[in-house]
Amino acid sequence: MTRLTRRTLLAGATATLAAASAQSPIHAAMPPSGKQAPGFYRYKVGNLECTALNDGVLTFPMPDGFVTNVSRERALAAAEAAYMPAGMVRFPFTAQLINTGSKLVLIDTGWGAGVAPMVGLLAANLAAASVDPKSIDVVVMSHLHPDHTGGIRTATGDLMFPHAEIMVPALDWDFWMSDAHMASAPNETMKGYFATTRKLYSGLKDRVTAYQWGQEVAPGVIALDARGHTPGHTAFAMASGASRAFIQSDITVIPELFLLNPDWHVAFDIDPVQAVQTRRKFHDMAAAEKAVVIGYHFPFPAMGHVEKTEQGYRLVPIAWSPVI
Amino acid sequence: MTRLTRRTLLAGATATLAAASAQSPIHAAMPPSGKQAPGFYRYKVGNLECTALNDGVLTFPMPDGFVTNVSRERALAAAEAAYMPAGMVRFPFTAQLINTGSKLVLIDTGWGAGVAPMVGLLAANLAAASVDPKSIDVVVMSHLHPDHTGGIRTATGDLMFPHAEIMVPALDWDFWMSDAHMASAPNETMKGYFATTRKLYSGLKDRVTAYQWGQEVAPGVIALDARGHTPGHTAFAMASGASRAFIQSDITVIPELFLLNPDWHVAFDIDPVQAVQTRRKFHDMAAAEKAVVIGYHFPFPAMGHVEKTEQGYRLVPIAWSPVI
Repeated sequence: MTRLTRRTLLAGATATLAAASAQSPIHAAMPPSGKQAPGFYRYKVGNLECTALNDGVLTFPMPDGFVTNVSRERALAAAEAAYMPAGMVRFPFTAQLINTGSKLVLIDTGWGAGVAPMVGLLAANLAAASVDPKSIDVVVMSHLHPDHTGGIRTATGDLMFPHAEIMVPALDWDFWMSDAHMASAPNETMKGYFATTRKLYSGLKDRVTAYQWGQEVAPGVIALDARGHTPGHTAFAMASGASRAFIQSDITVIPELFLLNPDWHVAFDIDPVQAVQTRRKFHDMAAAEKAVVIGYHFPFPAMGHVEKTEQGYRLVPIAWSPVI
Repeated sequence: MTRLTRRTLLAGATATLAAASAQSPIHAAMPPSGKQAPGFYRYKVGNLECTALNDGVLTFPMPDGFVTNVSRERALAAAEAAYMPAGMVRFPFTAQLINTGSKLVLIDTGWGAGVAPMVGLLAANLAAASVDPKSIDVVVMSHLHPDHTGGIRTATGDLMFPHAEIMVPALDWDFWMSDAHMASAPNETMKGYFATTRKLYSGLKDRVTAYQWGQEVAPGVIALDARGHTPGHTAFAMASGASRAFIQSDITVIPELFLLNPDWHVAFDIDPVQAVQTRRKFHDMAAAEKAVVIGYHFPFPAMGHVEKTEQGYRLVPIAWSPVI
């Protein structure tokens, strides 16, 4: 009966539509767009105008040993509970641009071009946000892993941000440039990281400035000791007037696994025990302060509040705003 | 000591930067953009290409009686726990566009122009998504509240979607067009809704098609009985191949209050007891099926999964994807 009624109604509707469209040209079905919205998001921290810039998302089969201190089954169960495809891990990448009023500062740069089709999108999203790479004054690295630092070069090896000073954490620079540390790299992945980092920074020694924890790397942006993930791994506090926000970098990578289970060791943590200490200390503070926390591997726009749960923490994503 | 080191390092960096920039023009500080990213988000449900279209967000002081069956203090505590500004409620609005391959279908239309500066943004976001309002074939209303239906007209009163059939739930049409119901409207808000709806649809009777629950309003889009919020309030199932997603419309308005506390009555529910029954039935199903659920008043992009908690449900927002 509903279906009969439906047919009757639709027949009527079609007649009405045809009549209404009589004076306008008949249009064809609209082709699918196939295009996602641009991956940037603006917000303010006091007078700082910030832009989250997505570099893409990698979704890959979870390798053995991805979480080194729990079983693959348990890690996969956490991924599936977070609606990741069966057997897979979803890993997003989002850098932050800060306009301090006097300086345009990029914190981390994404993978760079040519690594995989689903990453290296930062340059396109920067363009969508109407930012010329030439206008960036300072590029600050949280640490020297390739997903953070690869974007300093274009596909042809030129400098992506030709006018920018490149600031790197002093302890990470010392670590990755140390021949002794490279020689004692424990596995092929780490050996690859050493090789990639050295190739990337080859010839750039004079463009690079090493920074220390406690230093204001740009007006209102303070480098914080967040050691563990790498020896010089750095978080940042943004402060302007009464407003504050924290860029936690990789203190926690994907929140669905490692914020919920802060004692889990991701394979990329160089000192996983120290990383857990840093993670718990930082997020205890963030939860107590109801701080806005930005994470490089949080789902875009990569911002939220952190709440304590029985075993760890939970990320409550920020509510998207149509204005800054 | 850090500060001294910092000064030394920055002095060095400035010298390096100046040398590197010698052949390029010195550029001024980049002015702040002041502009948010466009508020649309694309996703697929099988072969259906869908676009979430934000119409804006209203943040307003919580009125007395906003939640009719709990104290204002308790309702405000829930809002503050969700990081809304003290004393305020944050209310987002997001419509859905569905390209079925043969029809371009808009489900709900936003407030329309001129209501408030922070709403009526759907037209701009449609433009940002490169969709011409003239290409929309069907506009389907979930119900006839002004935040859903006001967008059918432009600021000058013309039809915003001049080639579109307008489909309205038969029971809502009967209710809002009934002189008897208008005469017995229990308060000024409801009287206003009747007046607004009649003015909006004045002269459009021949353009409007009434639809029934169970009907396929467009290929792959099925109208579902979701009565309570209004007499004809409708949810939608989108289905294509093995994929499904549910547009829950206003079964639950803002999830921070009413999904977490499904027994709370929002002032806008015309039959709040029925609305609670519909809410619990729908979200029990959605949680059990791990369904993708889209809500008109969920934070943009207004999609997520629903999980049962002790007292109600929790929304887990979808992980943003850089590709469709």
